[in-house]
Amino acid sequence: MKQADLLTRTVKENPKDEISLNAKLLTRAGFVDKLASGIYTYLPLGLRVLSKIENIVREEMNSVGAQEILMPSLLPKDNWEKTGRWNVEEMYKIHDENLGLGWTHEEIITPLMKKHILSSHDLPKAIYQIQSKFRNEPRAKSGILRGREFLMKDLYSFHNNEESLNEYYERIKKAYFRIYERCGLKDKTYLTLAGGGTFSSSSHEFQTITSAGEDIIYICKECGNAINKEVFDKKCSCGGKDFIEEKAIEVGNIFKLGTKYSKVFDLKDENGKHLIMGCYGLGVSRLMGAIVEVFNDDKGMMWPKNVAPFSIHLVSLDMGDNDVKQKAEEIYDILQNSNLEVLYDNRDEKTAGEKLNDCDLIGIPMRIVISQKTLKEESVEIKKRGEEKTELLKIKDLIDFLKNDIQDI
Amino acid sequence: MKQADLLTRTVKENPKDEISLNAKLLTRAGFVDKLASGIYTYLPLGLRVLSKIENIVREEMNSVGAQEILMPSLLPKDNWEKTGRWNVEEMYKIHDENLGLGWTHEEIITPLMKKHILSSHDLPKAIYQIQSKFRNEPRAKSGILRGREFLMKDLYSFHNNEESLNEYYERIKKAYFRIYERCGLKDKTYLTLAGGGTFSSSSHEFQTITSAGEDIIYICKECGNAINKEVFDKKCSCGGKDFIEEKAIEVGNIFKLGTKYSKVFDLKDENGKHLIMGCYGLGVSRLMGAIVEVFNDDKGMMWPKNVAPFSIHLVSLDMGDNDVKQKAEEIYDILQNSNLEVLYDNRDEKTAGEKLNDCDLIGIPMRIVISQKTLKEESVEIKKRGEEKTELLKIKDLIDFLKNDIQDI
Repeated sequence: MKQADLLTRTVKENPKDEISLNAKLLTRAGFVDKLASGIYTYLPLGLRVLSKIENIVREEMNSVGAQEILMPSLLPKDNWEKTGRWNVEEMYKIHDENLGLGWTHEEIITPLMKKHILSSHDLPKAIYQIQSKFRNEPRAKSGILRGREFLMKDLYSFHNNEESLNEYYERIKKAYFRIYERCGLKDKTYLTLAGGGTFSSSSHEFQTITSAGEDIIYICKECGNAINKEVFDKKCSCGGKDFIEEKAIEVGNIFKLGTKYSKVFDLKDENGKHLIMGCYGLGVSRLMGAIVEVFNDDKGMMWPKNVAPFSIHLVSLDMGDNDVKQKAEEIYDILQNSNLEVLYDNRDEKTAGEKLNDCDLIGIPMRIVISQKTLKEESVEIKKRGEEKTELLKIKDLIDFLKNDIQDI
Repeated sequence: MKQADLLTRTVKENPKDEISLNAKLLTRAGFVDKLASGIYTYLPLGLRVLSKIENIVREEMNSVGAQEILMPSLLPKDNWEKTGRWNVEEMYKIHDENLGLGWTHEEIITPLMKKHILSSHDLPKAIYQIQSKFRNEPRAKSGILRGREFLMKDLYSFHNNEESLNEYYERIKKAYFRIYERCGLKDKTYLTLAGGGTFSSSSHEFQTITSAGEDIIYICKECGNAINKEVFDKKCSCGGKDFIEEKAIEVGNIFKLGTKYSKVFDLKDENGKHLIMGCYGLGVSRLMGAIVEVFNDDKGMMWPKNVAPFSIHLVSLDMGDNDVKQKAEEIYDILQNSNLEVLYDNRDEKTAGEKLNDCDLIGIPMRIVISQKTLKEESVEIKKRGEEKTELLKIKDLIDFLKNDIQDI
């Protein structure tokens, strides 16, 4: 993609109406545009990141045998009245209609499964969707970490015995950790024991450590699991009593729902036994916000390679020099033809300083600079985001270098 | 995918609350599930088709230089009051909030572009999204052809002279025809002159001929273009006066908006000239419904290859026979490993008749049957959906046959 054409525009100043770091950086770098409190447009760079995270989540859900569907967002009042969740703060209701907007989907998936699970032959089943959710958040001040509209993966599993639920619950824990690993967050993300909340008495969260975290967790030095502050009583289930206190962001939550919803909608097996359900949430846009909160420095964002909007930021300085310009175009074509994802800064009107600052702000993992100076050496300058070291590399060796190196960015 | 595990369930009877053929067939075949009038869940088979159409649309939009973004669905009242479209029938409003649900996005994209188009240097620009839209339709009776919630691609283009808009408008016409071609609809789809509607006085539609069509079009025998009934005055712009009358479904509409929205939001170039806009809609779920209305017979649906949920329906009869079962599993693995998209009917409890009826109902382009009878000949039976002819093929020749044939399914 040529940056001169790209719908993005970096700005130096922080937006005045944003408090959170993720919103400041994503806005300044042209990844998102705020429409209203907690409501954002994803611009091309932002949508590329969001889609990459979405696909990682999709692949890992498919890998544990979950099947993707797409439920609606416009949801009938009747279903919610049955569970007593029509008059809750979270629900946006449509004026003059018996419809509300989906902020979770137990009330839809449970009656749907009545049509599909006719006997224990059909069990277990795990069904998920990735979809925009809507939630009435009077104080949405955390950028894309807590929106009124946000992208979420919600998975529901159905079983007719505890062992089956427990086994699937453990598989999901592993799948979630694979997601965080692929998003670069594994070292900073902990499984925590959490309170029941709206849903049930038994739940776990995945918490990513960052100074911007709204939650406090206590990490057990013994077993490495953690406990949320609200349910912390100074000892771990492993027996451990030594903890590290950290601020963290919740990036996933999983619940054993038991028979709460299957009873309301009378979902049962052929023996008349109500099914046991699990539910597994992961905020895709929230995860994107968490990545920004974790990977940044005073110059901008630093995307992990799997979720970066592009792999390579090719920057041509001295665009007034025809030799530089021509060689830059040539390199861009070669990189494109090698199926590398390249953002090519071909802007005429920007100074070298502005271009290099934009590189740091946007945070693509590898920067390749071509200028009069490097061209004299028949070279380009290579620099990884987050490292100070630059390296001159002969242009003829570039593709070989990238082929070897791109895996390690 | 193994059919015994798949979240789908075919039913013989037509749903009682559906009038339209697309809703009847998609429901009976387990592609969609109706939640409320004009509101459907896409089950795995349905979501596969929807995603394939979505990706075709995305590729063709990218091919004409359009950039993808994702705007929100929760939209502030202020923007709509400026254009006088807050109090329109289409708009779902959130109770007690100054928010409405997006049924189109001129009111959002136009002020957004004010931040990005600073001079004629930044023109032309074409920006699109693919997103769930919401529209208050009191009488939603056409299945997924006209939903209260539906998936739509909306593209907006920005220009500072008529020639640029006209040129882009023609490129989009061609891109739309490529979409219909890839969806199997090219021969039945016509560009029509249409009335202005909500937006402007100048617009075109793409209409696909089918007996289920809600619209009447007149196709000019001279030039092949068509005219919608509402604006038909018995002669064509080419001079032709001979027409064929047909029923048709609108599967796309394009408008020259002129300066209508750029004036309201004061979007202009550096010379103070208001930008000229075009807008280009295509209902992705509606297109899926149109494909069903066109490609069916009394036994079920008949998906064109590019949008079929799977390429091959492998059906094992005589599942009680271990040799048949084992050979079927073997063939399934081979097909999977050849990167073919296969739905494998491995269900134990279904009769041969039920299985073959389900094949016709679901409508995958190629059926491969293995049974005691075919296995005696070391063969499988091949049949294409929509053809009566069956053919025995030696199992050892299957992959070679498919490699040659899969392009022509």
